[in-house]
Amino acid sequence: MDKINVIKVGGAVVEDEASLQELIHQFATIPGYKVLVHGGGRSATRMASRLGIESHMVGGRRITGEDMLQVVTMVYGGLVNKRIVAALQACGVNATGLTGADMDIIRSHRREPKMVTLEDGTQQLVDFGYVGDVDRADGHRLASLIRPANGMQPIVPVVAPLTHDGHGNILNTNADTMASTVAKALATEFDDVTLTFCFEKPGVLADADDDDSVIPTINTASYARLKADGTVSGGMIPKLDGAFDSIAAGVRRVVITHFSDIQASQGTVIEA
Amino acid sequence: MDKINVIKVGGAVVEDEASLQELIHQFATIPGYKVLVHGGGRSATRMASRLGIESHMVGGRRITGEDMLQVVTMVYGGLVNKRIVAALQACGVNATGLTGADMDIIRSHRREPKMVTLEDGTQQLVDFGYVGDVDRADGHRLASLIRPANGMQPIVPVVAPLTHDGHGNILNTNADTMASTVAKALATEFDDVTLTFCFEKPGVLADADDDDSVIPTINTASYARLKADGTVSGGMIPKLDGAFDSIAAGVRRVVITHFSDIQASQGTVIEA
Repeated sequence: MDKINVIKVGGAVVEDEASLQELIHQFATIPGYKVLVHGGGRSATRMASRLGIESHMVGGRRITGEDMLQVVTMVYGGLVNKRIVAALQACGVNATGLTGADMDIIRSHRREPKMVTLEDGTQQLVDFGYVGDVDRADGHRLASLIRPANGMQPIVPVVAPLTHDGHGNILNTNADTMASTVAKALATEFDDVTLTFCFEKPGVLADADDDDSVIPTINTASYARLKADGTVSGGMIPKLDGAFDSIAAGVRRVVITHFSDIQASQGTVIEA
Repeated sequence: MDKINVIKVGGAVVEDEASLQELIHQFATIPGYKVLVHGGGRSATRMASRLGIESHMVGGRRITGEDMLQVVTMVYGGLVNKRIVAALQACGVNATGLTGADMDIIRSHRREPKMVTLEDGTQQLVDFGYVGDVDRADGHRLASLIRPANGMQPIVPVVAPLTHDGHGNILNTNADTMASTVAKALATEFDDVTLTFCFEKPGVLADADDDDSVIPTINTASYARLKADGTVSGGMIPKLDGAFDSIAAGVRRVVITHFSDIQASQGTVIEA
């Protein structure tokens, strides 16, 4: 039975040299088939600021103007992605960097302006700019790299949070969404897909200030309660939405955990 | 008999929106197996300048300090590469972006400081910084993408001028050298490899100011004369060195031509 691990690592992990090195070494030790999906938002914000481009966020999502699209294309697709690929190669992991445009792996369409509820409860029509909502992913092509038919060495994809619309435009796509998309696409090709979201916290916390308050499991019913009482908010919502989506689409196991626990022995487990 | 075209396009071509679009459409019409290798030096210089990083060139080659390595990694590997990939996808060409680090395609080592003859004839010991001289290329892996064994659609690699040293470092590598390296590696996998260097001129010119003075063929003997009398100098020398190298390594045909003549019906033909 073919197992595969899809590991999502957030910006804060890949952008600090020490935690990046720890991540690379831990990821290299995971046996069998695997995929790494990375963010890079903080690096993009920093690079944008060096270039005099302002960063705008609404509801935890970046507004991507033309200037910012250039920045995320070069920072996610170039700087962050290639640094990870080269570091993995140094650990003997035969990685390849991919955006959704490469091999037409993930297509999206530019998001229509939509109503967003702001933190103060008011609603606002927001144009997110060059942001892509995913239409489809080619799990078969991805699997053909990961598990080559012709006796060649398996490739480990390192996926940057960029997609394309098929009309020549690169689009900025949330990295958690990318991870769920990849995991779901691979669920049609592998029997046992584990999706692990690694970040700076040990899991979903009942009390944001207490790292010992990890919620061990979340199911659909408890998720609704956690959202209603505000325990889960902001950037955790797309992560958990993607987690439930992935389970519904055949992903075997979704875990949210600390990046030092990349093999997901602890953290919060998402249940159907 | 399997034919393949390796097309190298210089920075000036991919950096102007109009010439990039012309290139993409012409490249898309080339039948059969193909690879695109691109530069991006001018974009890197421009981005570096926006970031307050000075560009230093010696003998047509860039000095790549740590700051500049970041810039070329993001500009070549991200901005330029992904824009080309997305544009090709829009033309129905299933392209994938690659640096030498991806799939461990091209390994290099950091160039030792070396004596360089400057334009005024004096010699200087130059440390080129994070610049990679190629050690080996994996033509078999490249061929497995271009001509998949398992009945999948062929992939068209779009290669950025970056390599890696196997110890976690990305290295800046001359794009002409990348093109020759790719062509030579593919000569062990394909029967008939054509390498075409496309740039802003219609070929190697006898008189740099006269576009009608294209030298139709150059062989080893005439190359020595052209170098001695200064007709060929600067950036044309590594291009032609690579061309002769490629022919010696089994590449069938090398042509230097204008980017509007991507199928190489004219220009300068290199002969053994």
